Amino acid sequence: MFLPFWKTTEAKPLPTHATEVYLVQRPRTTIDDNTFGVRQVALPPVSDGEVLVQVLWVSADPAMRGWLSTMRNYVPPVPVGAHMRAFGVGRALTSARGVPVGSLVTGVLGWRSACVMKATSLVIAPSLPHGVEPSVLLGGLGVTGLTAYFGLLKIGSLTRGDTVLISAAAGATGGAAIQIARAQGAGRVIGVAGGPEKCTYVREVLGADACVDYKAPNYRAALRAACPEGIDVYFDNVGGVTLEEALRLMRRGARVVLCGAISVYNKTEYPGPRNYLALLTQRASMKGFIVTDFQSEFPRALKQMGRWINQGKITVREDVTEGLENAPAALARLFDGKNIGKVVIRVSSERNEQTKIMSKL
Amino acid sequence: MFLPFWKTTEAKPLPTHATEVYLVQRPRTTIDDNTFGVRQVALPPVSDGEVLVQVLWVSADPAMRGWLSTMRNYVPPVPVGAHMRAFGVGRALTSARGVPVGSLVTGVLGWRSACVMKATSLVIAPSLPHGVEPSVLLGGLGVTGLTAYFGLLKIGSLTRGDTVLISAAAGATGGAAIQIARAQGAGRVIGVAGGPEKCTYVREVLGADACVDYKAPNYRAALRAACPEGIDVYFDNVGGVTLEEALRLMRRGARVVLCGAISVYNKTEYPGPRNYLALLTQRASMKGFIVTDFQSEFPRALKQMGRWINQGKITVREDVTEGLENAPAALARLFDGKNIGKVVIRVSSERNEQTKIMSKL
Repeated sequence: MFLPFWKTTEAKPLPTHATEVYLVQRPRTTIDDNTFGVRQVALPPVSDGEVLVQVLWVSADPAMRGWLSTMRNYVPPVPVGAHMRAFGVGRALTSARGVPVGSLVTGVLGWRSACVMKATSLVIAPSLPHGVEPSVLLGGLGVTGLTAYFGLLKIGSLTRGDTVLISAAAGATGGAAIQIARAQGAGRVIGVAGGPEKCTYVREVLGADACVDYKAPNYRAALRAACPEGIDVYFDNVGGVTLEEALRLMRRGARVVLCGAISVYNKTEYPGPRNYLALLTQRASMKGFIVTDFQSEFPRALKQMGRWINQGKITVREDVTEGLENAPAALARLFDGKNIGKVVIRVSSERNEQTKIMSKL
Repeated sequence: MFLPFWKTTEAKPLPTHATEVYLVQRPRTTIDDNTFGVRQVALPPVSDGEVLVQVLWVSADPAMRGWLSTMRNYVPPVPVGAHMRAFGVGRALTSARGVPVGSLVTGVLGWRSACVMKATSLVIAPSLPHGVEPSVLLGGLGVTGLTAYFGLLKIGSLTRGDTVLISAAAGATGGAAIQIARAQGAGRVIGVAGGPEKCTYVREVLGADACVDYKAPNYRAALRAACPEGIDVYFDNVGGVTLEEALRLMRRGARVVLCGAISVYNKTEYPGPRNYLALLTQRASMKGFIVTDFQSEFPRALKQMGRWINQGKITVREDVTEGLENAPAALARLFDGKNIGKVVIRVSSERNEQTKIMSKL
């Protein structure tokens, strides 16, 4: 059963103002209370080809730390004084070519309660099974799931039987990667996560063969012990010590997938991986990627991810924060390693309104 | 005109002893007077399937530093007390299946004046043009040239129009890489070398568009200035600061070819490249290789290299040391950055004997 098609009602006036979280000052290291502010802004008029969007969910992602910095990156930095860039899912309150009113849409909506977007920058969401929150479009069926998918399969060239190591394995992308590796027939899947609770989750819920606690005292030795025959693919979300040890463990022809480096994002200066010359002796590679490079292959990948979710091979766990004004705190949870699963922020709820509309149908 | 086929004469007795340079103690950092020793050894009897080889030339290569260390590598370390492993070219003094007596052969002969080798571990050299010393089989027409060839074309995926940066550009492999990049239609070729003499050589003899002196005071800035639009391929022979700056200069989709890291080989501890996350933002890759992985493609590559040498597109410069006992000093020249071109050691000369034989024909 699917959600009924949502329609605006004549009775409900369109919003004229929005709440937004904006960048007050760039963090030098850690994001703190001085980084972001909250304000009310008047929405601009909706021009031709544009859509007024009610934002339902936004995400908080490790990559945001890079967007706040002026260091060279794959996108320009968020300007000081501008609303924070973020992926989001929302409802079209007006229509434009290709986007009927009432459509569930995803895009880079920003940390805003409502926004005016070019119709061409929005993607119409697929129908979701009944009871599935649209936040899944930010996680397993969104950028996070796609990142794990393309990182493992395209950059990591995951092959049946491979031994795969995945860091930040209790996080959104790492967790998806653990399950995709499993679903794709990896030989042995090892996670790295912080603390016993997360490690248990990675093993018992996500299905990893082993999960190593990076906060435990002899972490390096435990990691080596968990990979007695080395590794073929390392999916790196953290950098630092874990990347160094992974390089030491590489088998011939191994692939390091550089997805992120949350352990160093808050640092102004960080060392490179000391064992990088293992790439040479092991004829191995280390390669970075940005998921949007694979945009043309998104539909096929999402279909596969949806199939795995339906089969229960991929479970989607979320770390939900209520209220847009708490988005900065939700982002900080990521860097404190507090989250298990995808960090999402509920901006507004449709439930009551949907019920109202459904009762009217 | 080609060299006449060399034949042993009945008159000349086969050697029963050889001089060899052997490993006395592993260097902790720099190779010094205590690292190697020289001794006379009795040659073992030549069994079936073996060949007695008179060594003519051996090489000294940066990779040897790794062979002296017990750190994980692509070959086991040279044992203490054993003769030093080295590529060499020699003359077969006896025959075995596939190796007629008198053949010019290449292989891992070692720093030895004569040796008994399995016939299957020797490669019969192609005919060389008159006047060309067989040492070319260790350089441009040997492992060095092949390393530059496969590194640039296979690992670096060099494409017409690419901007290519090559370090240790006055060295054997770097110098070959500069010329191969040129011959393959690279858009802009930039070398890095130490000191004005080498830089002039890289520009004027090898044909680089620019060469940056890493010993000059504002090296980092000069390197950036020489690559105003970034780089597509970095062929890394040195590691260290140059690798870090190259990462900073990478264009989207750039490739770092990890061929060596002479700047750090003598160090017990060295930092990793601090800018490695540029691989992520630039969707770039860093990949190591060992030339022997491409063995099946050697014949085709050598044919191409030979063609380029004949066309004058690749010039072969050698840094010749006379006498096997001076091989350790020749190796030290590499780490001191004293050599221009391929470092080879002349072990014994055939010239007189050839003349003698030719006059007898």
